[in-house]
Amino acid sequence: MANINVGILEFEKVSSQPVEIVERKGTGHPDTICDALAEELSIALSNLYREEFGAIMHHNVDKALLIGGVADPQFKGGKILEPIEIYLTGRAIDEKNGKKLPVKELAVETAHKWLKENIPNLDIVNHVIIHPKLKPGSKDLVELFERFQLKGEIPLANDTSFGVGFAPFSDIETIVYELERALNSKEFKKDHPYVGEDIKIMGVRNKDNIRITIAMAFVDKYVNDIKDYVEKKEIVTNYAYSLAQKLTTKHVDIFINTADDIDNQSVYITVTGTSAEAGDDGQVGRGNRVNGLITPYRPMSLEAAAGKNPVSHIGKIYNTAAMDMAERIVAEIEEVEEAYCYLVSQIGKPITEPQVCDVKLRATCDVNKIKDKVLKIAQEEIDKLPTTWQKFLNRHFRLY
Amino acid sequence: MANINVGILEFEKVSSQPVEIVERKGTGHPDTICDALAEELSIALSNLYREEFGAIMHHNVDKALLIGGVADPQFKGGKILEPIEIYLTGRAIDEKNGKKLPVKELAVETAHKWLKENIPNLDIVNHVIIHPKLKPGSKDLVELFERFQLKGEIPLANDTSFGVGFAPFSDIETIVYELERALNSKEFKKDHPYVGEDIKIMGVRNKDNIRITIAMAFVDKYVNDIKDYVEKKEIVTNYAYSLAQKLTTKHVDIFINTADDIDNQSVYITVTGTSAEAGDDGQVGRGNRVNGLITPYRPMSLEAAAGKNPVSHIGKIYNTAAMDMAERIVAEIEEVEEAYCYLVSQIGKPITEPQVCDVKLRATCDVNKIKDKVLKIAQEEIDKLPTTWQKFLNRHFRLY
Amino acid sequence: MANINVGILEFEKVSSQPVEIVERKGTGHPDTICDALAEELSIALSNLYREEFGAIMHHNVDKALLIGGVADPQFKGGKILEPIEIYLTGRAIDEKNGKKLPVKELAVETAHKWLKENIPNLDIVNHVIIHPKLKPGSKDLVELFERFQLKGEIPLANDTSFGVGFAPFSDIETIVYELERALNSKEFKKDHPYVGEDIKIMGVRNKDNIRITIAMAFVDKYVNDIKDYVEKKEIVTNYAYSLAQKLTTKHVDIFINTADDIDNQSVYITVTGTSAEAGDDGQVGRGNRVNGLITPYRPMSLEAAAGKNPVSHIGKIYNTAAMDMAERIVAEIEEVEEAYCYLVSQIGKPITEPQVCDVKLRATCDVNKIKDKVLKIAQEEIDKLPTTWQKFLNRHFRLY
Amino acid sequence: MANINVGILEFEKVSSQPVEIVERKGTGHPDTICDALAEELSIALSNLYREEFGAIMHHNVDKALLIGGVADPQFKGGKILEPIEIYLTGRAIDEKNGKKLPVKELAVETAHKWLKENIPNLDIVNHVIIHPKLKPGSKDLVELFERFQLKGEIPLANDTSFGVGFAPFSDIETIVYELERALNSKEFKKDHPYVGEDIKIMGVRNKDNIRITIAMAFVDKYVNDIKDYVEKKEIVTNYAYSLAQKLTTKHVDIFINTADDIDNQSVYITVTGTSAEAGDDGQVGRGNRVNGLITPYRPMSLEAAAGKNPVSHIGKIYNTAAMDMAERIVAEIEEVEEAYCYLVSQIGKPITEPQVCDVKLRATCDVNKIKDKVLKIAQEEIDKLPTTWQKFLNRHFRLY
Repeated sequence: MANINVGILEFEKVSSQPVEIVERKGTGHPDTICDALAEELSIALSNLYREEFGAIMHHNVDKALLIGGVADPQFKGGKILEPIEIYLTGRAIDEKNGKKLPVKELAVETAHKWLKENIPNLDIVNHVIIHPKLKPGSKDLVELFERFQLKGEIPLANDTSFGVGFAPFSDIETIVYELERALNSKEFKKDHPYVGEDIKIMGVRNKDNIRITIAMAFVDKYVNDIKDYVEKKEIVTNYAYSLAQKLTTKHVDIFINTADDIDNQSVYITVTGTSAEAGDDGQVGRGNRVNGLITPYRPMSLEAAAGKNPVSHIGKIYNTAAMDMAERIVAEIEEVEEAYCYLVSQIGKPITEPQVCDVKLRATCDVNKIKDKVLKIAQEEIDKLPTTWQKFLNRHFRLY
Repeated sequence: MANINVGILEFEKVSSQPVEIVERKGTGHPDTICDALAEELSIALSNLYREEFGAIMHHNVDKALLIGGVADPQFKGGKILEPIEIYLTGRAIDEKNGKKLPVKELAVETAHKWLKENIPNLDIVNHVIIHPKLKPGSKDLVELFERFQLKGEIPLANDTSFGVGFAPFSDIETIVYELERALNSKEFKKDHPYVGEDIKIMGVRNKDNIRITIAMAFVDKYVNDIKDYVEKKEIVTNYAYSLAQKLTTKHVDIFINTADDIDNQSVYITVTGTSAEAGDDGQVGRGNRVNGLITPYRPMSLEAAAGKNPVSHIGKIYNTAAMDMAERIVAEIEEVEEAYCYLVSQIGKPITEPQVCDVKLRATCDVNKIKDKVLKIAQEEIDKLPTTWQKFLNRHFRLY
Repeated sequence: MANINVGILEFEKVSSQPVEIVERKGTGHPDTICDALAEELSIALSNLYREEFGAIMHHNVDKALLIGGVADPQFKGGKILEPIEIYLTGRAIDEKNGKKLPVKELAVETAHKWLKENIPNLDIVNHVIIHPKLKPGSKDLVELFERFQLKGEIPLANDTSFGVGFAPFSDIETIVYELERALNSKEFKKDHPYVGEDIKIMGVRNKDNIRITIAMAFVDKYVNDIKDYVEKKEIVTNYAYSLAQKLTTKHVDIFINTADDIDNQSVYITVTGTSAEAGDDGQVGRGNRVNGLITPYRPMSLEAAAGKNPVSHIGKIYNTAAMDMAERIVAEIEEVEEAYCYLVSQIGKPITEPQVCDVKLRATCDVNKIKDKVLKIAQEEIDKLPTTWQKFLNRHFRLY
Repeated sequence: MANINVGILEFEKVSSQPVEIVERKGTGHPDTICDALAEELSIALSNLYREEFGAIMHHNVDKALLIGGVADPQFKGGKILEPIEIYLTGRAIDEKNGKKLPVKELAVETAHKWLKENIPNLDIVNHVIIHPKLKPGSKDLVELFERFQLKGEIPLANDTSFGVGFAPFSDIETIVYELERALNSKEFKKDHPYVGEDIKIMGVRNKDNIRITIAMAFVDKYVNDIKDYVEKKEIVTNYAYSLAQKLTTKHVDIFINTADDIDNQSVYITVTGTSAEAGDDGQVGRGNRVNGLITPYRPMSLEAAAGKNPVSHIGKIYNTAAMDMAERIVAEIEEVEEAYCYLVSQIGKPITEPQVCDVKLRATCDVNKIKDKVLKIAQEEIDKLPTTWQKFLNRHFRLY
């Protein structure tokens, strides 16, 4: 039985406090691109290893660097002057019994595939250079990973690390998350092809006023001139307003590309739909947390989950587990209004034996009355940790 | 007058809550190396620009990637098989009136200089490759920056972003911070040259028990054999224990390199004093926050301050300003036990006009009685924002 | 009037000497790929500059490096494990009146286009990484190049260098050249898709016996097994024999992939049709001379013509001019059986004023009787040098 | 007994023909730097392999690419703006029984060592970036190489290739070679520190007039101003003249840096002594042949010998063997005035069984009278081929 602590959230609800800040970096943001490519590579490697070894082998491909290109966007369509460069790095077993595995090739193919599907205006042949800089990593770990998965042993924590999660989302958290998802949905894009994928949303609530600031890359070839730009920005602003206002009773204001200088025709247009084309660099772990948001008024881990191995990497597993735990507690125990969960590992111990599992609740009743239910859920989630990797392979979480 | 909100910290003090988690990545950790090289490059560029233009010009060199090498450490001294590679990237003005500035050369020299001074067992000629991948950035910004500094205009926020800070440190925060500083001090190294610079400290407090887990790279040439290793680890453990115990009345346990397998002589030794030599990669912004710690039980920004331009980059300036503000409020107002400060910018507005300044206090008196004092300090700190860059150039903050 | 020397070839004809050695590296050879990409980039740049400036600007993109990939070829189709990497380097003006030109992007696009057309089994998206490492070069040269082309001034030699050419080809030279052209022709490939583009032909004549050794990459997916391989090799051997034998009265033997070990099924198959997929590296200037051959029994320049600027680069212009001059003298003066031409420039002087033009002839009559005709042709070819660039843009020469 | 052909050189001696062209690229030329680093790496690898395996293992590190930096030279001392980048590439066994060998590290260290010793004004820490891009190569070859050296089997030719050599040097060949050696000697540099290592010498003989054109990088910090430059150039011109004139009875003219524009102070000065600092790129195999010269009036191989493995690489071994053979024949047989030797291999056959060995002589007697002596020397040289690698390790040849 794990060392589980159940306590009370004593402070005022974040949503009742006077100020709240929430951010989400959308699909085409350089940091999100890095997260996505790292995590997709981890999934592809996991699948390759399962085919070759029958089990996921050690890898950590959680460092990626995007170096922005140079572009000359123009109304009706500009051009790229220098391609974007993306370094994919980390460790991955690349050999099995002397047979070389296509680890670097997989990195290149996976990256191209994701970019093609998710940043459709980016010419993956000519506008981006993928540098697969993976290194083999230790062969000693092969046996260890075989034990974990083929012989059913519980993986051991690779580090002293922690994870945090909370539920549910406040209004502004919901708005920021859903708004980006909507603006980057296939349905929306069909009617609004001029909206690029690089959408960064910052929400600030000041008492009852929610101010949503959106930085959104327009795709130049779908915008005829400055007048057309202004009109299209207006259309998106209205769309965002009506969607956001449905999700809250508070007052919402929407601001898109506030740095635009319409008179000088200096506005946020791009050739490819992402600012990565011209100067904005990106890295793994600089963007959204595993719940899809950046929330400075909430507890956050700095862990970059994307690209980590899903079997034994504590920072990856505990953050998602803490989120799942919080969500289940809120969903399944009627009296719980809000839950915060913290998990701390001890290096070298089974991942099912955290050093600490700290659950904090805001409930409509005495916490002692529901403590057993909470402990049960927490313990169940901890017991499931050895199979969490399956959720990562199914892209169950919002890692990017 | 800025929009300043003063409120109350309603939750139990973090130091009184049952669990607390604190981490610090020391000088030689791959992430810290990246932070250090990015920030040192920003300082070097700022100095170059001041010489050439009389003012700091636009730059953001806040992305760096360290790709670990391959090493064969051995008791009494092993060797490096493949060098470490470090990519330094970002934007920096590299021309003045058609004259080229040595921006790439500066990146190389600054990196070598820092590494030589701070990781003395690393052979900077042969064990590390610096890739200066900086791009010029926009020349349009030259005029803007001249206005900021030569004509005294207030810099405009480059983004909608935020900063957070708190004061004072709890016992465990103090221990984690001071312990790393001590183990990496020149004095300590003089007597203990076998202690490498890659020291990661994780502190977990469970009620009144503080458990300090230290991952510390030993320098192989100063360790004769496994027996010597065990003895030297014992020496450092004792040192750490007595230092830590002086800083708290709670019970402290020290654990160093818990993954060591003494029987198999598989222990944490390195040729260079940093795990970067063999496989551990690093990035900017993955490590310590601007107060030198990672504190999941405290509000944190994900901002990577290191390498950002110190004149107008909100994420850099507001985080340090929020920290300074919190420290001053605690230091100067006797009744304040604890302060949390949040600053939110509005893109395109002067940096002295934050969208929100939210100050939360724990005080021994009614907050209304001290509100004016708090507002005064907050406003003063906001007014000083245009000169914050000087503090960065003087390495006033603990950016790495 | 240029300093033209007309002399006699005193030695026995190469084709009458006991031994002759001739080599040609075909389209898919790593060195030829480098030559091709360098020259195609020079052409693309020349066209871009003509559009933007009305004249070809300075560039020298004559250094390229191909780092072979890693592959696992298999009968019926194997796969690539690590992509090929190609560095394109050199100097090229990348700005016009402050406007940035897409020089790096052009390098990437041109390379992909050539590879797609010429190495059809290479997946240009995933199997090759193009690194455009061009640097701007001196802006001072803009004015110079404008004078050359817009104002009609004669370009000045950029170096003290030389060119050599000879005509006609001997039997074995013709065979080696034509054989590669035939095996890499679209018609032949249609019926023999299993023949890759990496074809290196070495011809050695020992008195009246010509031994043709062909190293030819088979495309694995078009070969079912070792038996099929042997049969297909036989088909190509017969084809090559009958083609070669038509071009000479001497005895010809054809040997394909002599290092094959049929018993151990170790034969020369590839996934992509080029050995660049697995280990063979390449560089510009290591392969065929401007006449399409490597001929150690003939005078040769070491000049790497591919990628040099076609307006003023002496090494490029003089080698092709010497070849053209020799061919015209042989074609137009009935009495001339063979001609060797040498041109030496003087740096800083007009390219039409060579330091030396040395023409050596083998004729059926006294050379003095035809000297005037020779001088006339030589002078005409020298006078045409300022328009030679047009021939390069039309791919008139066999630069790769 | 090898297939050796002995014939007569029928054409007029090159030194008696009206025109002769000879070139040498000195130590600091970008192409020579590439050759030197490739060859030194081959030697370092050979030594490492002998230590580890008792025998030289397979490697071919014959491709290197130097990408010039950016510099701002000034009288009395300028500075470097962007470092030189050097890619070292090729194949080298990097493992022995699962133990990793420091192949990449060796590439970095060897390059730094050579540069430090040979280009003393280049700061190897900050002005040059070495990229070790070696790949492992085939492990199958380990056994083969062990057989060659440990069991005394004759290495098999790795390719159908050839080598050529001639002796003796003509006057102008001697002058060009000796002049560069003198100007780059330690003795000369001691008194003339302003003479950089990048010295390219082109000699053109027009009947009895020898014109020596020298492109020579001055080191800026040792030159005070334009007047000083002119004076120092005069000193070197005089020195070169008197040295050259001692080596011939023909008339010699010396021209240094003919592109200098004294009035505009546009002269050939550098910070480091090599043009690689600013724009000039380099590659292996683009410079001197294995006799130290480029001689278009002589038979030449295009083979890039530098960096090839010295045990079985035909292109490397046969070129040096042909040179040695020609030199011995001329030295040991009084009647021989001049000798040209050609060697052609057959892939897969022992290196001591060339397809053809063609020796051509100019003698003062009937060749038949000395044929036996010639055959004996030729056969001896062929028999010694399996130990040629020792000469490479001792830097017996002039590979750079």
